[in-house]
Amino acid sequence: MPVDDALQALRRQPFEELGFGKIDAHRRLRTDFPEVIFAAGKSDAHLMEIFSRIYEMDGEVLATRATEAQAGMICERFPQAVYDGISKVLRIERPDKVHKGKVAVVTAGTADVPVAEEAAQTAEFFGSSVDRVYDVGVSGLHRLLARLDIIQGANCVVTVAGMEGALASVVGGLVSRPVIAVPTSVGYGASMHGLSALLTMINSCANGIAVVNIDNGYGAGYQAHLINMMGLRDSENGNGAENEKNDSCH
Amino acid sequence: MPVDDALQALRRQPFEELGFGKIDAHRRLRTDFPEVIFAAGKSDAHLMEIFSRIYEMDGEVLATRATEAQAGMICERFPQAVYDGISKVLRIERPDKVHKGKVAVVTAGTADVPVAEEAAQTAEFFGSSVDRVYDVGVSGLHRLLARLDIIQGANCVVTVAGMEGALASVVGGLVSRPVIAVPTSVGYGASMHGLSALLTMINSCANGIAVVNIDNGYGAGYQAHLINMMGLRDSENGNGAENEKNDSCH
Amino acid sequence: MPVDDALQALRRQPFEELGFGKIDAHRRLRTDFPEVIFAAGKSDAHLMEIFSRIYEMDGEVLATRATEAQAGMICERFPQAVYDGISKVLRIERPDKVHKGKVAVVTAGTADVPVAEEAAQTAEFFGSSVDRVYDVGVSGLHRLLARLDIIQGANCVVTVAGMEGALASVVGGLVSRPVIAVPTSVGYGASMHGLSALLTMINSCANGIAVVNIDNGYGAGYQAHLINMMGLRDSENGNGAENEKNDSCH
Amino acid sequence: MPVDDALQALRRQPFEELGFGKIDAHRRLRTDFPEVIFAAGKSDAHLMEIFSRIYEMDGEVLATRATEAQAGMICERFPQAVYDGISKVLRIERPDKVHKGKVAVVTAGTADVPVAEEAAQTAEFFGSSVDRVYDVGVSGLHRLLARLDIIQGANCVVTVAGMEGALASVVGGLVSRPVIAVPTSVGYGASMHGLSALLTMINSCANGIAVVNIDNGYGAGYQAHLINMMGLRDSENGNGAENEKNDSCH
Amino acid sequence: MPVDDALQALRRQPFEELGFGKIDAHRRLRTDFPEVIFAAGKSDAHLMEIFSRIYEMDGEVLATRATEAQAGMICERFPQAVYDGISKVLRIERPDKVHKGKVAVVTAGTADVPVAEEAAQTAEFFGSSVDRVYDVGVSGLHRLLARLDIIQGANCVVTVAGMEGALASVVGGLVSRPVIAVPTSVGYGASMHGLSALLTMINSCANGIAVVNIDNGYGAGYQAHLINMMGLRDSENGNGAENEKNDSCH
Amino acid sequence: MPVDDALQALRRQPFEELGFGKIDAHRRLRTDFPEVIFAAGKSDAHLMEIFSRIYEMDGEVLATRATEAQAGMICERFPQAVYDGISKVLRIERPDKVHKGKVAVVTAGTADVPVAEEAAQTAEFFGSSVDRVYDVGVSGLHRLLARLDIIQGANCVVTVAGMEGALASVVGGLVSRPVIAVPTSVGYGASMHGLSALLTMINSCANGIAVVNIDNGYGAGYQAHLINMMGLRDSENGNGAENEKNDSCH
Amino acid sequence: MPVDDALQALRRQPFEELGFGKIDAHRRLRTDFPEVIFAAGKSDAHLMEIFSRIYEMDGEVLATRATEAQAGMICERFPQAVYDGISKVLRIERPDKVHKGKVAVVTAGTADVPVAEEAAQTAEFFGSSVDRVYDVGVSGLHRLLARLDIIQGANCVVTVAGMEGALASVVGGLVSRPVIAVPTSVGYGASMHGLSALLTMINSCANGIAVVNIDNGYGAGYQAHLINMMGLRDSENGNGAENEKNDSCH
Amino acid sequence: MPVDDALQALRRQPFEELGFGKIDAHRRLRTDFPEVIFAAGKSDAHLMEIFSRIYEMDGEVLATRATEAQAGMICERFPQAVYDGISKVLRIERPDKVHKGKVAVVTAGTADVPVAEEAAQTAEFFGSSVDRVYDVGVSGLHRLLARLDIIQGANCVVTVAGMEGALASVVGGLVSRPVIAVPTSVGYGASMHGLSALLTMINSCANGIAVVNIDNGYGAGYQAHLINMMGLRDSENGNGAENEKNDSCH
Repeated sequence: MPVDDALQALRRQPFEELGFGKIDAHRRLRTDFPEVIFAAGKSDAHLMEIFSRIYEMDGEVLATRATEAQAGMICERFPQAVYDGISKVLRIERPDKVHKGKVAVVTAGTADVPVAEEAAQTAEFFGSSVDRVYDVGVSGLHRLLARLDIIQGANCVVTVAGMEGALASVVGGLVSRPVIAVPTSVGYGASMHGLSALLTMINSCANGIAVVNIDNGYGAGYQAHLINMMGLRDSENGNGAENEKNDSCH
Repeated sequence: MPVDDALQALRRQPFEELGFGKIDAHRRLRTDFPEVIFAAGKSDAHLMEIFSRIYEMDGEVLATRATEAQAGMICERFPQAVYDGISKVLRIERPDKVHKGKVAVVTAGTADVPVAEEAAQTAEFFGSSVDRVYDVGVSGLHRLLARLDIIQGANCVVTVAGMEGALASVVGGLVSRPVIAVPTSVGYGASMHGLSALLTMINSCANGIAVVNIDNGYGAGYQAHLINMMGLRDSENGNGAENEKNDSCH
Repeated sequence: MPVDDALQALRRQPFEELGFGKIDAHRRLRTDFPEVIFAAGKSDAHLMEIFSRIYEMDGEVLATRATEAQAGMICERFPQAVYDGISKVLRIERPDKVHKGKVAVVTAGTADVPVAEEAAQTAEFFGSSVDRVYDVGVSGLHRLLARLDIIQGANCVVTVAGMEGALASVVGGLVSRPVIAVPTSVGYGASMHGLSALLTMINSCANGIAVVNIDNGYGAGYQAHLINMMGLRDSENGNGAENEKNDSCH
Repeated sequence: MPVDDALQALRRQPFEELGFGKIDAHRRLRTDFPEVIFAAGKSDAHLMEIFSRIYEMDGEVLATRATEAQAGMICERFPQAVYDGISKVLRIERPDKVHKGKVAVVTAGTADVPVAEEAAQTAEFFGSSVDRVYDVGVSGLHRLLARLDIIQGANCVVTVAGMEGALASVVGGLVSRPVIAVPTSVGYGASMHGLSALLTMINSCANGIAVVNIDNGYGAGYQAHLINMMGLRDSENGNGAENEKNDSCH
Repeated sequence: MPVDDALQALRRQPFEELGFGKIDAHRRLRTDFPEVIFAAGKSDAHLMEIFSRIYEMDGEVLATRATEAQAGMICERFPQAVYDGISKVLRIERPDKVHKGKVAVVTAGTADVPVAEEAAQTAEFFGSSVDRVYDVGVSGLHRLLARLDIIQGANCVVTVAGMEGALASVVGGLVSRPVIAVPTSVGYGASMHGLSALLTMINSCANGIAVVNIDNGYGAGYQAHLINMMGLRDSENGNGAENEKNDSCH
Repeated sequence: MPVDDALQALRRQPFEELGFGKIDAHRRLRTDFPEVIFAAGKSDAHLMEIFSRIYEMDGEVLATRATEAQAGMICERFPQAVYDGISKVLRIERPDKVHKGKVAVVTAGTADVPVAEEAAQTAEFFGSSVDRVYDVGVSGLHRLLARLDIIQGANCVVTVAGMEGALASVVGGLVSRPVIAVPTSVGYGASMHGLSALLTMINSCANGIAVVNIDNGYGAGYQAHLINMMGLRDSENGNGAENEKNDSCH
Repeated sequence: MPVDDALQALRRQPFEELGFGKIDAHRRLRTDFPEVIFAAGKSDAHLMEIFSRIYEMDGEVLATRATEAQAGMICERFPQAVYDGISKVLRIERPDKVHKGKVAVVTAGTADVPVAEEAAQTAEFFGSSVDRVYDVGVSGLHRLLARLDIIQGANCVVTVAGMEGALASVVGGLVSRPVIAVPTSVGYGASMHGLSALLTMINSCANGIAVVNIDNGYGAGYQAHLINMMGLRDSENGNGAENEKNDSCH
Repeated sequence: MPVDDALQALRRQPFEELGFGKIDAHRRLRTDFPEVIFAAGKSDAHLMEIFSRIYEMDGEVLATRATEAQAGMICERFPQAVYDGISKVLRIERPDKVHKGKVAVVTAGTADVPVAEEAAQTAEFFGSSVDRVYDVGVSGLHRLLARLDIIQGANCVVTVAGMEGALASVVGGLVSRPVIAVPTSVGYGASMHGLSALLTMINSCANGIAVVNIDNGYGAGYQAHLINMMGLRDSENGNGAENEKNDSCH
């Protein structure tokens, strides 16, 4: 009887009440994904408590959107923690991590790199191998074409672009694997803090593009990792070579 | 030298000039995906010409957003064509098609079914096996939970919802495979023809959700098929059983 | 003659002219509700004058959106005043206050707590008993289900959520008492400072949901208190046990 | 252990699979609310099947947004069904229904009456007594004041207004019971199909106002009935006489 | 021949080129209105130069949106200048100014006073007599009604309101002279920095209301003064007594 | 005591309850303005009843937004009624009406004429004399300049423009009397049904401009008539000759 | 003295008053551009009168947005008129017209062709030679690259695209002559009738792109013709060969 | 075979990989345009490296949106660099630069000058001669007319305006050369940071206007330079004298 099965699944997921929030205590056993911390806006006390608890449970921690001050506080207590000031990613990673498969993270400009790094480091933290292809916006197409082999070789491509966000459509037309498009808030005036790029990507007439929130590098990295893992055996069989694309604008 | 390789890849993609448009003549050889027709707004003459050419090349055709009148015209000449008035999908499919893996297509209400069927039939046309779970909106959670095993058993879940679009977040919190969210134009007033549901889905704090355009069942079905194919061997190994999810709202 | 009655009602409501504003001098006699101060943007002199006058009249004061500096100023003169830095609520409460009935205040995440506390403390100030259920966002449904008895036991449920705001619909589907939904400005990118959550909640297809302004914890707490008071005798008769819900998405 | 209790509650809610949708089979036993049909966009076959099934289960049916053609079809088979062309409400009601308490439904203009009637007839169907006060927009305040006693005597007031929607704030300032505000799509130009009225109502600085979707008379009627039922005993004790209001704009 | 006349009119308007801008040198001779300075964003040097030149020409100066620092600089050189920190109006006025007719400036709350004062002081500077009626928002109607005689006695009423902006409609329904509505950026959340109040006012169904930009006290004061001057003789004949209003919502 | 006076004023305004609406029975005695009918969306029965009742009371009627069918119905019973198919104004006017003062109604293009005529005929119905200056959009400035004497001779100028709506600013810079700007829904694409023109006019940096709703010719005509009446004696004294303008962009 | 010169220029531009509009009688003598008619929404009588008058003056006429019915009426009287049902352009052209220089009109899809043809035929009518490159959207880059020589050989490129509008950025990155971007209303869902494409183009980080209104083929064709004429001699000198582009995304 | 040619063109464009970005190494040889730096948001190290590399390659550099701090850092190492604090343009220019043709840059107010200077200095850097006409907004038309000869004498006119942005339409109606319209973020309230001016300009009914992003002085200056260069020989032949305009609002 399926209702019971569903309920069983739910019942297996305990959590720990911290008062101000709840931490999933048994997740690591059930899935491959340790809990991730969104540091922005968290008080020092709360961040330290959550960070410590997850470290105890999992032996590794990923926190995104950490300020320099937050990173300083954490690193004082956890000297093994690594902070990247560009992407604001703060993490303790297990030393023996193996990165598999291939995710490509592509940006239109250099200003999109912080979001791209959040995506790349998230995917790497979960165990994906990542290739970075930065500053290949569509207004200089030869830069993109010069890196096409890298992009076409990945199981999943994350395209990161602000302003008009056209990169996603062009990349979408050149690869046959799923493309995760991340609009960024890079731009000014009518870019409306990334809404314009979001609309561009949502309206893309290239096949195989799906979109996450503005500046949501984490979400794109997570989704790309999920897809990369699914394509793992597949790509080992050399299917990447067939990685060409449907060019009809549906 | 990579630029040359990229150029070679592009050079291998010829097309046929129809005057009013261009058809990709060699796609079938290169990829698994035949060209798909977006019938809306096409004149009868153009639709017939494109439909016939693709049928000659591929032996099968998928057209979306076909009106009843367009379907009538095509079916008169191609009696083997099948038209679904709900989803407005018109197709000729090869008789020997095998459907593999598993895509779940889930809707919040019955009014979302046309978009869901466009997604489901697209994925099926490309070769995916599809499970349909309809009318399980979040305001009656027990309906969704009663079908959870089907949803958690898929390699990719397409969630289709209009109005407030909350279904995507709830489904996203219950599965660990990628979720493709399709906002629909179902609703009235402040639903703004689907923009509200689109915003809901883009802002979802569940992990693993990416979004396509409002009512874009085709795009979701295409993306879901890509992911399903990648997960094929994976799921044969029973990984679906581990299909549980990160419940932390990042 | 009803016009006269209406006019009489209006005529009974005198006020005191402060020059820069007007204070209702006789309200306490007429209603159960003392006047409440919206501290944001008020000058120190004005805030002190209004706070003092209301304290003289009512013996208790509730001020919302008070900055730490404003609170410091008030507390120096009124040492009995209590300030909560999270919700920015500043108040002097009568010592003998009895809290009746039950309002549940539910949040999707920890970042929504400041708005939730404004709602909870407002309802408490007026005399409601409040249960807090925090960090039960829909992406981790088991956390919400684990607290369902508390939520279903209330006369009115205030749901507080930012980002996609899906919590309101799910809660709305699980209880049969009125739900007051408060969108918050928590989120980034396409959350547009809470507009996305507001749209989600307004479009909810669950029955019994009504919405207040973004971050308007006070308004939700006030409304919830009104409803809670109406349900007082009702719930004493144990009707809360029947507190189940219409699950049809109208 | 609360998780189990929650799950038990969910397990008690079976439904009937119709293929295109699901009907809640046991609702009447659990709650006071029969299932309601949103007729807009439903095919004749689906509407007839759902209508019939609910009639068999409950002995009464409420359908909203029914077209004249839909009503004709239903009335042919169910001659006891009553259709109101203004509000597009179609219903079979039990003959012995008793209406209790008091809900006031107030409109700004005559063009808002269809939405107001959807609200009023919904509340009446569920068992509330309703007073209608129509065409009392704020540009002619004496009309509103002449009906103030009716409005102040209700347990809950539904205010229905399009264009600038100012009525909700004025009514909100004159009563002390909860006000449910319904923006309507009445207006032109910058009314943007009701969005302007929705914004007005959401931003209201009167206390005790919560808002539902544009033209959502059903939602307002449902919510008003819930509140009215809670206030039933309360109003029998004459508390309505104290029904005055906090005039401070928080 | 009218084209020539028009051109003559234009030719009579010389100006003085300052390099960074242009000052109208002969305006005072042609009209009753001296040039007014919008101080916001002007450099100290430019502000001082423009201020001085206009003072030399006209013997009086009105500057709006002046910061405290700008005011300090000007007042050091022109000790006779008066600065109002609330409205940010900085001015030197001729000592013998006579104020005629009557403009009423009405606000919904105390937070709207800065914009109201910009309007009031602008109208006064040009020669109108102004009555101020502050903090009479529609959620406490008795405060407004208590001041109705002042409002109805004016040749033109400026209504200043943020949040939902309903005051304009109510005032518009109570007077028969033109109403100039000024939305303010007071509010939060869905007030969208005054856009909501602007939409409310533009959609008002009361007659005789026209709207200026958000926070544009200057524009409203200017327009009100123009209208007041036109009504001067009229009001001296006591027409104000007939100052009642069309209550039909057109 | 002013509250009583205000209440007296309100009490003097009786109305007649029609069930579906209310008609002001004594307005003509109190003000110069007969009640006006907004015909759009009214049922034939309601329109006929309201039209007849007002005709009985006032001996003249003004209805706006009347369809051809509505006009036909009315004209059959009231052969003296006049219908203008361009502006959709339907009216019975007293034969002895004298038009006084001067209102100028100016349009940018010929497509704006329907709205302009609604304004012009409204002002005329109330007793203003109106000059029409059509098709003088700012892209052909010589056309506007050739009619400048007419525009500058009016007590109030109504500018009617769609698309970019720049006409209001240019006219605002050429006259010193109040300008009422009416955005129209003329245009396509980014004109967004008049919102673009509305924003242009609201942001105008010319002095003395106030704005009404998109396509609201009636509102502009009403306001212009109010102002024109106030300027009546004034303009008889030849003040129109001084009708020049402040050219500083405040 | 420059003011006089300016006025002289304006004075030299007479027009003919038609009552409902104004026609420029001497334009042909002054400029190379005959007056153009925007037929949409014009009554038959007005269209015929304007069309005839311009034909008499200029011997040729260009009308855009003409319906089939309007075209039928005109063609009956002017058998030499030519109507293109795709672009809705109706024209009588002088037989001896010579087309000079080169404008390229490029579309993303076949659905953009009507707008593209309005642009192309406008430019041709004024005397430009036009190359059409249709259906070269960025999701199939090889189609665009295969036509690059045509695009790079033009003095001005008009890019016409709906949906996400990315074509403009890619073309902008491949040519060094000015690009006029025309967003079209082609698309659905979040394309918002062309607003999304408009935002994409306005935010383009490619150099040398400027944008006209949604679907404004006429405006783009006019602007492209102006630029093409300026480049006439230039391109005769073979400068087109150097037609390469700045690829830095500024 | 055109595909090969296109590919050849692309292959000729090498670039230099900096890791965080890519610099075009051979551009100067191919085009007249050196690479331009958008300084905003660049780190000091990156800015210095890019600035130095371009200086080495081209002997001159143009950087826009440079902060005072960035300028200080660059000027310390490159004393020949010139920084303009108004426009935030930082540049090293070759001493022997000749400015040709004529671009006119026109602003509505003094607050628009920073954007105008970015446009003017960009065009000058590339080799155009520029005339500046500032503070000629449409609310004081005589200022614009007094400078009409300068504006009409240019090969391309850049109009820069915030607030309502009406200047572009008026200028567009007075010249026959292309107009590039730049909306600015100058304004407040409903100007929405320049979106209102952008909409005004996009909807302009004057011919020959195309629009760039809000505050995008660089883009306008680049485009104007391209057009100016094309008109070079043309204007030497005195065609500027014929520089009059189509006044029909298409």
